[in-house]
Amino acid sequence: MPSKAQYGSKAELAAAIRVARGDLPADLVIKGGHFLDVFAGELAAGDIAIYKGRIVGAADAYEGRELVDADGAVAVPGFIDAHVHIESSLLSPVRFQQCVLPVGTTTVIWDPHEIANVRGADGLRWALAASEGLELDVFVMLSSCVPSTSPHMGLETSGAELTTDDLMQLQGHPRVLGLAEMMNYPGLLAGDPAVLDKLVAFAGMRRDGHCPGLAGKDLNAYGAAGIHSCHESTTLAEAREKLRKGIHLLIREGSCAKDADTLLPLLDDYSSAVIGLCSDDRNPADIAREGHIGFIVDKALRAGVRPEAVFRAASFAAARAYGLEDRGAVAPGYQADLCLVRPTDGSDWRSGLALGAVYKRGRRVDEHRLARAAEERIGAGSTIRLHRNLHLDPVDTPDFRVPAAAAIPEQRVRVIGLRPGSLLTVHLEARLAVEAGEVLPDKSQDVLKVAVFERHHRTGRRSVGFIRGFGLGAGAIACSINHDSHNVIVVGVEARAMALAVNHLREIDGGIVVVGSEGVLADLPLPIGGLMTDRPPAEVTEGLDALKAAARGLGCPLDEPFLQLAFIALPVIPALKITDRGLVDVERFELVPVLV
Amino acid sequence: MPSKAQYGSKAELAAAIRVARGDLPADLVIKGGHFLDVFAGELAAGDIAIYKGRIVGAADAYEGRELVDADGAVAVPGFIDAHVHIESSLLSPVRFQQCVLPVGTTTVIWDPHEIANVRGADGLRWALAASEGLELDVFVMLSSCVPSTSPHMGLETSGAELTTDDLMQLQGHPRVLGLAEMMNYPGLLAGDPAVLDKLVAFAGMRRDGHCPGLAGKDLNAYGAAGIHSCHESTTLAEAREKLRKGIHLLIREGSCAKDADTLLPLLDDYSSAVIGLCSDDRNPADIAREGHIGFIVDKALRAGVRPEAVFRAASFAAARAYGLEDRGAVAPGYQADLCLVRPTDGSDWRSGLALGAVYKRGRRVDEHRLARAAEERIGAGSTIRLHRNLHLDPVDTPDFRVPAAAAIPEQRVRVIGLRPGSLLTVHLEARLAVEAGEVLPDKSQDVLKVAVFERHHRTGRRSVGFIRGFGLGAGAIACSINHDSHNVIVVGVEARAMALAVNHLREIDGGIVVVGSEGVLADLPLPIGGLMTDRPPAEVTEGLDALKAAARGLGCPLDEPFLQLAFIALPVIPALKITDRGLVDVERFELVPVLV
Repeated sequence: MPSKAQYGSKAELAAAIRVARGDLPADLVIKGGHFLDVFAGELAAGDIAIYKGRIVGAADAYEGRELVDADGAVAVPGFIDAHVHIESSLLSPVRFQQCVLPVGTTTVIWDPHEIANVRGADGLRWALAASEGLELDVFVMLSSCVPSTSPHMGLETSGAELTTDDLMQLQGHPRVLGLAEMMNYPGLLAGDPAVLDKLVAFAGMRRDGHCPGLAGKDLNAYGAAGIHSCHESTTLAEAREKLRKGIHLLIREGSCAKDADTLLPLLDDYSSAVIGLCSDDRNPADIAREGHIGFIVDKALRAGVRPEAVFRAASFAAARAYGLEDRGAVAPGYQADLCLVRPTDGSDWRSGLALGAVYKRGRRVDEHRLARAAEERIGAGSTIRLHRNLHLDPVDTPDFRVPAAAAIPEQRVRVIGLRPGSLLTVHLEARLAVEAGEVLPDKSQDVLKVAVFERHHRTGRRSVGFIRGFGLGAGAIACSINHDSHNVIVVGVEARAMALAVNHLREIDGGIVVVGSEGVLADLPLPIGGLMTDRPPAEVTEGLDALKAAARGLGCPLDEPFLQLAFIALPVIPALKITDRGLVDVERFELVPVLV
Repeated sequence: MPSKAQYGSKAELAAAIRVARGDLPADLVIKGGHFLDVFAGELAAGDIAIYKGRIVGAADAYEGRELVDADGAVAVPGFIDAHVHIESSLLSPVRFQQCVLPVGTTTVIWDPHEIANVRGADGLRWALAASEGLELDVFVMLSSCVPSTSPHMGLETSGAELTTDDLMQLQGHPRVLGLAEMMNYPGLLAGDPAVLDKLVAFAGMRRDGHCPGLAGKDLNAYGAAGIHSCHESTTLAEAREKLRKGIHLLIREGSCAKDADTLLPLLDDYSSAVIGLCSDDRNPADIAREGHIGFIVDKALRAGVRPEAVFRAASFAAARAYGLEDRGAVAPGYQADLCLVRPTDGSDWRSGLALGAVYKRGRRVDEHRLARAAEERIGAGSTIRLHRNLHLDPVDTPDFRVPAAAAIPEQRVRVIGLRPGSLLTVHLEARLAVEAGEVLPDKSQDVLKVAVFERHHRTGRRSVGFIRGFGLGAGAIACSINHDSHNVIVVGVEARAMALAVNHLREIDGGIVVVGSEGVLADLPLPIGGLMTDRPPAEVTEGLDALKAAARGLGCPLDEPFLQLAFIALPVIPALKITDRGLVDVERFELVPVLV
């Protein structure tokens, strides 16, 4: 665990003491501003002196090699994202930092759950290697639930399985803080030995939670088992109960799940010591447009929470919750991770957040430098390669056939019903025409075909079903992001377009593609595990925009068609899902036939 | 570092989950009361279910093998003493717990600085062994400044010296949390390599501070060097600056240093997450009469601080400041260290604290059980013996002679001037009669003799000087507690009585003695290092009372004659002190002659 003022040598420590006493000049002094005192809860006036990446003086006047005029701004500790899946940004870590550092996030706690599902322990090793030596500090929680459903249930084919032994091999890494979100809370509550094994193995470290809706004695049991946090609260009552029961509340504002407005009433002077903020899953377009953790800060300020409480939650609370004793405060000995902030209207914090310069380890964050660093790192290649992601043979139109039960003109089928803006689906039924023994989709009812192809082990497993809600008039959409096992999923009207989409994904080694009647309309290659890319954030945002425009052009009414598609195969969220094994009735936790 | 819900086996964890879910009965349920939510800052209603020493449920209704009616009381986390020298209680740890557990202190963080000064690394090992397996949880900070002045300064002869290597050998002990109070802040600020060595060696752990009056850039330097806390603030401005600069503020109320009334205005909802409470040095009589950490809690409540803030400071704040993640909250997974409390008048917390039952690891604290445990442990003997404490030959009246400079009728001498109730002294002068070449004390001026005898290495070093303020008309007072080197000190009117007092200390192997004209009036043997005893707390309190009465009978006007005597030899507190090497002018940091 990183400690305050952890100098490696006496010489370095001696120099820091001399600078702090004013006997040697500081590297950088931020003058003429205020700073947040996260201990007493005041905005105090005075200089901030920085030496070798750490704050050595606050409040007193200093001279330095470089002076910055704070111009009346307030220096607050850099924001900490207490729970993030970097993969959801579609960016590799070195590209992710390009997005989040400039908007004030200086530390993130990453559960590399997606790449772990694709590549297992190699995925975790890649995550640690790819986040090593960045400007952004990336700490890692080791994914606890890979795959999301037990393989012996046979509901899906996952890319990998992580055992307690796999995790323990990485437990001692200096940036590993513990066990990531324990999503398998039913298993925990039932005393599943594999779950208990992991909890006991990580008993000396932080063990994150994930327990939407858990309450009462079950929540007690979750906390009694040592679970440390939860970022899944969606109602005030749920969040209040978790907070009270010692489950660190993390207020989340992602691209899909947006809980800040609901939960911010819990944030006050008292609770700001223990409530953290997080993004969980946030795409690069939202980060560019709205910000990252700063977006929650802005909401909190506008909601009237005292800035002393808001900025403490955004930094100190998460730092202390995860044992990061070297950050989260503007005080001597702390890492010089700072944001210069002020109210947008210059006087009243209720006007929201205006973010100025960001400093990481005492160095001003510079977008060009971050871009150059990314190019250099990518040019040099990574130690573990994560390409060759699509282990499946080319597909063809017959792969999408759904044979009817008998020689009948019409067939009753189960249909996955999308709910726009939600990960939940509804379990529908429809009557579809049968032609030459094949059940046909029906655009007039918006009942399209959806298919999932296993892509990790070349098993050839695939399944085809029906879905309502995508509204496509032609073509197909396919992607290799498909929680949590990340097989290939494709939705479409015509088998030819669907096959083209899947085959195109094979060619680009994973990503997202929209196919029209005439061929590929737009694509976004994601060659790192089929989930992420090393391309620049702006290019990825443009690529996503082009994909969305193409989908809209085909008639899709959804705001986030690819996010919604990516959760169609997750067999732990109700009600009806589809995996490579077939349709899953999540309420009954079993496979059900397409035909009724 | 202890973690929340750190179960050793899957079976134990599985059982805890079942109890929490209500499938198995709890060991103990506290029903019908409220409990403090240290996260949101509320007094919540509901049951507390306990299993195997840990809380497994809070708020929800439970059944258990044992039910306790809370009768409307509020369960708060057991109090934590964030900084204590157990030696100052004159009691060994197993006797100390008899005093503090019944008054609500369930965890202490001990700097065994006194026994370390006497016995060095063996003293630290004894401290760890003697505090092992108690009901009270005793964590240890390793003494950083033994001896208090550098041996090459030659100001005193200490019992022991602790090097970085000595400390590092004990660094990995599971109850060692870090480096104890860095009293040598001048050395730190000057870059003394021995000090920096210790700071670097403990860079990954907590490093406590001790910096009375330090401010401005020097305080910045202290924090920049990684110092984590300070318990020495005596003014509001000093405490506020330390708090702001990230030096955890510990509000102290000892027997000598009493800072609570002054500093409590800093405690509020916000700061209660980071301000801890401590006793530092507190004698058993005060603990019995007023309480321990609960005494500060009582003062804070009477001062009008919200109970939600007061009780959080008394528990959670200290726990988190020291990385004790398993305690300091009433929530599932936390250790069941609880105090049942209510306002003394039953309704308004401003009436002060009424403390009911105390639970340690879910077991009600029972004074008789603690007494029995002490008798058993003492009967069984300890692994490291700390007797044979007084390594000095018998003394006689000539040892107390102060020869005059020449054959003159009167001699000018330096005199240590006591300040009642303070550890500071003043530098006085007096004219004393000379008889047969010897300078005589003068009762009419209250100028008595004071002598210090080296007692660790049988060097025979001794010094004799003069002191004003003890007011004795006859006899002598001697003791082997004598900060920080704990040589033997004696003050008296007649050389015969002084010699008798020192020789009596030899016989009882250390302690405190009051001698009158007719012989020994009262004594208190302290055979553990000459500092502590295994006798019951009540007996020690009675012994102290008898000693005080005897001193008063000889004319001594001081409230705490033995405490004041015990600091006369500490050459780091101004202005004039005496060690075995002679008089020390603390302002000039050098030895000065008795004769002027």
